[in-house]
Amino acid sequence: MSYTKVVEVQQRLFALDHALGILDWDNLVMMPPKGATDRAEAAGTLQAMTHELITSDQLGEYLEGCDAAELDEWAKANIRELRLQRQEAFAVPADLLMAIERAIVRCDQEWRVNRAKNDWESNVESLEEVFNLFRQKAKCLGDALSITPYDALANSWERGLTQAIIDPVFDRLRRELPDIIENVLVQQSPVVPLTGDFSEDKQMSLSRTFSERLGLDYGRARMDTSFHPFSSGSVNDSRVTTRFESDSFLQSVYAAFHETGHALYTQGLPIDHRYEPAGSACGMMMHESQSLFIEMQICRSDAFLQFFHPIACNHFNVNRESQEWSFENFRNNVREVKKSYIRVDADECTYPLHVLLRYKLEQKVLSGELRVADLPGAWNDEMTELLGLSTAGNYRNGVMQDTHWFSGIIGYFPSYTLGALTAAQFYSALVRDIGDPTEDIRRGNCEGVVHWLKHNIHQKGRLMSSMDLIQQVTGSPLSVDYFLNHLHTRYLA
Amino acid sequence: MSYTKVVEVQQRLFALDHALGILDWDNLVMMPPKGATDRAEAAGTLQAMTHELITSDQLGEYLEGCDAAELDEWAKANIRELRLQRQEAFAVPADLLMAIERAIVRCDQEWRVNRAKNDWESNVESLEEVFNLFRQKAKCLGDALSITPYDALANSWERGLTQAIIDPVFDRLRRELPDIIENVLVQQSPVVPLTGDFSEDKQMSLSRTFSERLGLDYGRARMDTSFHPFSSGSVNDSRVTTRFESDSFLQSVYAAFHETGHALYTQGLPIDHRYEPAGSACGMMMHESQSLFIEMQICRSDAFLQFFHPIACNHFNVNRESQEWSFENFRNNVREVKKSYIRVDADECTYPLHVLLRYKLEQKVLSGELRVADLPGAWNDEMTELLGLSTAGNYRNGVMQDTHWFSGIIGYFPSYTLGALTAAQFYSALVRDIGDPTEDIRRGNCEGVVHWLKHNIHQKGRLMSSMDLIQQVTGSPLSVDYFLNHLHTRYLA
Repeated sequence: MSYTKVVEVQQRLFALDHALGILDWDNLVMMPPKGATDRAEAAGTLQAMTHELITSDQLGEYLEGCDAAELDEWAKANIRELRLQRQEAFAVPADLLMAIERAIVRCDQEWRVNRAKNDWESNVESLEEVFNLFRQKAKCLGDALSITPYDALANSWERGLTQAIIDPVFDRLRRELPDIIENVLVQQSPVVPLTGDFSEDKQMSLSRTFSERLGLDYGRARMDTSFHPFSSGSVNDSRVTTRFESDSFLQSVYAAFHETGHALYTQGLPIDHRYEPAGSACGMMMHESQSLFIEMQICRSDAFLQFFHPIACNHFNVNRESQEWSFENFRNNVREVKKSYIRVDADECTYPLHVLLRYKLEQKVLSGELRVADLPGAWNDEMTELLGLSTAGNYRNGVMQDTHWFSGIIGYFPSYTLGALTAAQFYSALVRDIGDPTEDIRRGNCEGVVHWLKHNIHQKGRLMSSMDLIQQVTGSPLSVDYFLNHLHTRYLA
Repeated sequence: MSYTKVVEVQQRLFALDHALGILDWDNLVMMPPKGATDRAEAAGTLQAMTHELITSDQLGEYLEGCDAAELDEWAKANIRELRLQRQEAFAVPADLLMAIERAIVRCDQEWRVNRAKNDWESNVESLEEVFNLFRQKAKCLGDALSITPYDALANSWERGLTQAIIDPVFDRLRRELPDIIENVLVQQSPVVPLTGDFSEDKQMSLSRTFSERLGLDYGRARMDTSFHPFSSGSVNDSRVTTRFESDSFLQSVYAAFHETGHALYTQGLPIDHRYEPAGSACGMMMHESQSLFIEMQICRSDAFLQFFHPIACNHFNVNRESQEWSFENFRNNVREVKKSYIRVDADECTYPLHVLLRYKLEQKVLSGELRVADLPGAWNDEMTELLGLSTAGNYRNGVMQDTHWFSGIIGYFPSYTLGALTAAQFYSALVRDIGDPTEDIRRGNCEGVVHWLKHNIHQKGRLMSSMDLIQQVTGSPLSVDYFLNHLHTRYLA
């Protein structure tokens, strides 16, 4: 009886979350520019209503009244999840949350303007405010959950993720990646850039066709364009975006593949539990593992490229017999390893170093060891050490390149790299379970792969933590080995 | 102090309304097909939350505690509006509302399928259910407001609209329109259909350009396409849609003009009161008056056509010297009067007869005088009498052509014709106030016209009823005279 009441609250939380999701998508893809203030007002109010529902005495009583013995694993997971959400919601005072919301809106708006002008100075004050407020939030959450402040922030993106898990991973990557990168740079063939008529329409139709081929069901999905590619939505209405570069279609198409990986996860979630908290995705590290599984493990594999190459050549009406559009050069374009300034454009070998840098710096700023005003200098030092690139004075391609900190996404960066590790580990388990999918992929058949992901990962929703799910699916805890093996096999074999 | 609390409730009502508006727009313009069930679930829950807020004891206390003497006219209007909304919300039991919601979703979904197949029989049962439930709702509302059941439904679209107002209007139109139509049919020149390359892109860019010329601010508006053109949104984010016919651009462009009229009203609403109930549009009759003012009074006028014709010819790259694309024939196409089956395609002379028919039939079904199963016969009788057209067996172009009844929009139809009357009456007042705008319009300058509409109508929000606003703006109550004069001047002079 009491659980029935919990279900009613869940329906409301779903409705608010659904509305907030569409409002956010619309904001990034559709909304006319002057709609921003009213949209922020409406979304802020709906968030406050969500907070009120989560912290209500009534929900507390309903949860207290539930008898675990009578409940199935989904109901138990829902109750566990709601209790955690309550704990977090009670931990952070409402006025701190409101102050954060306002600070983020201001800082992010400033960033959009200042980044274009490479103007760091004008953003320092608002970014300091964001970090100050997140320092307080991290303290509140950490105290309530009896974990460290940084772990409290990491935990808000992926439950159970801690520095104790992340640090050894990055220590090893910092030790081993630089050598791998140097070796790849020596070995790889020179890349001839692909040229042709890459109109937006043609890029979009290629992305749509291939995302469908990868298993995306457009009966319950959309693909649009936005400034930064992203994915959002729910099992019956999943939305992805990509963007365009007129001189290169690969960035657009691989952004679409990446977001398709996210969307396949969303579409694969347990449909019968879609109105429940336990029916949602595990966490953002697991989400990134799914996008990177599709983008890196599948779509940058030899087998997939053998399928993709002739179709892309036909699509853009270019000559496959030319050296430029040969399979070799096509693959070299897709797989080029390069020390570069921009994280989102980085290849899978250098990418973790970009993340490592951000992880280290955000910790230092949060702990007070590093002042926001000193971030560009620290950024430059790290970039110089890790990738031999100076970012002195180049804020736009340095500390101002990512929206994350400016929009209050702190403690998130490790998810990307831990997701990449997880993807490699999952691929190994997939081969163990269903055999080598190479021949199927070469023929453009990804059904077996997507079915395995859905059955083993997507359908589990939030029944357990990502770390437990990795253990269950692969038989071992998260490990760096699979990822490093993958890089060796793909780039140095 | 108590009013401050009312304002807090208003912020929540605004947030829910804003979200519901975007969810609905998204549903009609963007959503993938399989998203429908979850969207209905989420929207239904947010509606229930709105209902709960409106009927809450707290809001009742806050409203009781407000001291009118301390409040300005906007605050007073807000309180009046919230009290009316409470009265209506208390009048209809929650389970009846839920039953209506479900019945509408089912009936509308069936209609989409059955209409395409001209299959009336399969829709009778679900439409009977809708009318049965609306009969109950009308009774509940009527009892609570001490008005008749039909007036209660009309009142839900336009406060204060009653059969006592509507009946004399339609009596006179029924008497006078048939003669006018016959005379026009005899006098008007034969129309040569306009042919050319009317691609969707070209139609859309023409619609966008002209809507901007009419005053639509795209910094806070969008124009898209949908199955039926519509407009929605709020002062800082107003959205219109149009549709395309490949063989005629005029339908698309005039649908865009019509929706632009709605959007100008929305954009002209009092911006400082946008989060308040009194800051919203007066009602749907007033809304239709604004769309028809732009579409009929302005955009089908000689002056506007003289401006529009050469630009349209250039746009579609056709020869203005040809007889087909001459000004005369262009105008004849825009103004052709024709007895036709479909309301949305009807000209302004025959349109009121289409409305009259629906008004009469929906009253009869609601009162129990006519069975839903007998609607096609009654439809055929009326169409034959009013326009000399038989719809026997042709459900698709008869009783199944409009979404309204199938989606629970009952008591709405009179708004269209009363809106057309109001538009003509407003035009007369505009000429009195600012002089004849013909010369400005001929040069494509509508600023004076739109400023007058904004200042006199849009900015008033919901401070008073539409009937009172008409009296205030024009100096006299709603009258049929202006509309009939307008038809005589335009079509028979």
